[in-house]
Amino acid sequence: MSNQVTLKDIAKILNVSASTVSKALNDSHEISQQTKDNVARIAKSLNYIPNDIARSLKSNATKRIGVILPNIESDFFAKIIRAIEEEATKRNYKILIILSNDILKKEIEGVSILLNGSVDGVIISLAQETEDLQEFSHLQNFNQRKLPVVMFDRVCHEIDCDKITIDDFEATYETTKYLHHKGCKNIAFLSTIYQTSVGKLRKKGYLKANEDLEIDKNLVIEIPNYKKFNSILKSHLKKHSIDAIITSDQLSAICALKVIQENGFKIPKDISVIGFTDGLVPQYTIPSLSIIDQNEEKMGKLALKTLINRIENITEEESIDFSHEILKTNLIQRKSSL
Amino acid sequence: MSNQVTLKDIAKILNVSASTVSKALNDSHEISQQTKDNVARIAKSLNYIPNDIARSLKSNATKRIGVILPNIESDFFAKIIRAIEEEATKRNYKILIILSNDILKKEIEGVSILLNGSVDGVIISLAQETEDLQEFSHLQNFNQRKLPVVMFDRVCHEIDCDKITIDDFEATYETTKYLHHKGCKNIAFLSTIYQTSVGKLRKKGYLKANEDLEIDKNLVIEIPNYKKFNSILKSHLKKHSIDAIITSDQLSAICALKVIQENGFKIPKDISVIGFTDGLVPQYTIPSLSIIDQNEEKMGKLALKTLINRIENITEEESIDFSHEILKTNLIQRKSSL
Repeated sequence: MSNQVTLKDIAKILNVSASTVSKALNDSHEISQQTKDNVARIAKSLNYIPNDIARSLKSNATKRIGVILPNIESDFFAKIIRAIEEEATKRNYKILIILSNDILKKEIEGVSILLNGSVDGVIISLAQETEDLQEFSHLQNFNQRKLPVVMFDRVCHEIDCDKITIDDFEATYETTKYLHHKGCKNIAFLSTIYQTSVGKLRKKGYLKANEDLEIDKNLVIEIPNYKKFNSILKSHLKKHSIDAIITSDQLSAICALKVIQENGFKIPKDISVIGFTDGLVPQYTIPSLSIIDQNEEKMGKLALKTLINRIENITEEESIDFSHEILKTNLIQRKSSL
Repeated sequence: MSNQVTLKDIAKILNVSASTVSKALNDSHEISQQTKDNVARIAKSLNYIPNDIARSLKSNATKRIGVILPNIESDFFAKIIRAIEEEATKRNYKILIILSNDILKKEIEGVSILLNGSVDGVIISLAQETEDLQEFSHLQNFNQRKLPVVMFDRVCHEIDCDKITIDDFEATYETTKYLHHKGCKNIAFLSTIYQTSVGKLRKKGYLKANEDLEIDKNLVIEIPNYKKFNSILKSHLKKHSIDAIITSDQLSAICALKVIQENGFKIPKDISVIGFTDGLVPQYTIPSLSIIDQNEEKMGKLALKTLINRIENITEEESIDFSHEILKTNLIQRKSSL
């Protein structure tokens, strides 16, 4: 519930039209001095700030930014939010976080809370269900209300706003080629996030590398949840003579290290493993984990900087050129891969 | 900035005292019918809701709950927030998360945002710096505004509110005795969170068990940051013939597994390792990690239920009996300990 005082409220109190109030506030010659005085007195009492210029006035800026995330259980989002927080603190902005838990309905609710005037702008990464159902109409509301938005990681083409992603396609494309170059013949791609836009791009990069390398056999292992991780991976290890696995994220790489070794294979001698998202745990796995680093810190900070630029340079013009920054990844080579 | 209309705003507009407005709204015989009509008209125009009963009116309930967390990089807080979210969704409440990043100033800012009428209640776990400096005055504001609060995990005695903790003292006390019973003679306690209330209680439990077991030698290993983890643990492994390590949290246990094995010791034959906080990773470490399970799901759900009870049964009475629930932990025995 917004209690923002409007022109209409002042008009009602004085039994005049909203247009009269507007003109009075703009010191129009059409309006009597007495009415101007009355409007000014009430506007002041109620701490009224004209709506159209409200956001550009420093006094009405909330200095708050809303962040809608799919989850915080993955190291990736935890690191992103840490970077956003750090940069926001420097710039004197506060962060409000809402989790969608990868559910469309919760994302819609989150959007509606943030549209309520509680923040100056929004950073969002889409819920898996939102991407599955390709349902983006709730996100149009940000543009309608001229609330600046930056999307990162899981983005959609349907909404006009600034976007920041990593080159997910390129990352798996290059890593597949790299492993092939190292002599691996049966490279598998293991994914637990195959329904997200990011998961799809990573799979595409792997498939395209196979195509370019003229490898017929695509070994895509898709695991719907971790309860089935052990049994699904084990059956693939038995069926195919896999000699390298690229995983879609960090957790699945950590789990793969164990399952592979428990099934009698040596890492990296028999099978190389490369995951996504660096952190402390990959340095302490046995063996330490080679990782495609996603530059979360850079991504989080860039998301915040891009958003603040929009907030502080807001214009009334309809045509704005939005940016799509695609960050490069880099392979951190540790002991789990040749 | 709050735009909630107050008695004072209406009083200013009408050039009367706030007390007159209050009496008029309460249909007092002291007030003329004309004044009552004026007050009623303006109160209605401005969508004024009397403050004292505002929160109990369903129309004014935000159905939102604020959660202030020290960080989300630890598995513990990520699991707590997941449990709070799930229970909140069931009860039709939405969650707004604010991170203090373990910094007092950020916690104070978070409190002030949530006091702004944006939530019906608050769940909080204290920042490390707040505990270090023993500075709790900002938290008194919740009580002054009659905004219900539940503290969990990192709590303080200075604030009257419902609290939920696990029995941190008992957990390490019992685990130390358990390892001793299994034949371990040189049990160490390794902590990376020794400045938090939780870290202090866990250390106390370990020390008291040693005292009761008539063990003179306390092996407390305190590691200020992970950059020094390897070197500090290594030097202790060299100096003392440690045969068991209880760690203060999950991450330090995962890291200890690696450092111990890299230094030529077998787990659990030479050294047993037991950490805190269960999750997927401890099941996939090599060897799998024995863990003191903190029942995060139960804790998160209980925090939410307790808060909603307060919100929905709010009373005007000053004397309320607050609860302090202390949840039991349980040891999940895996392959890292005898």
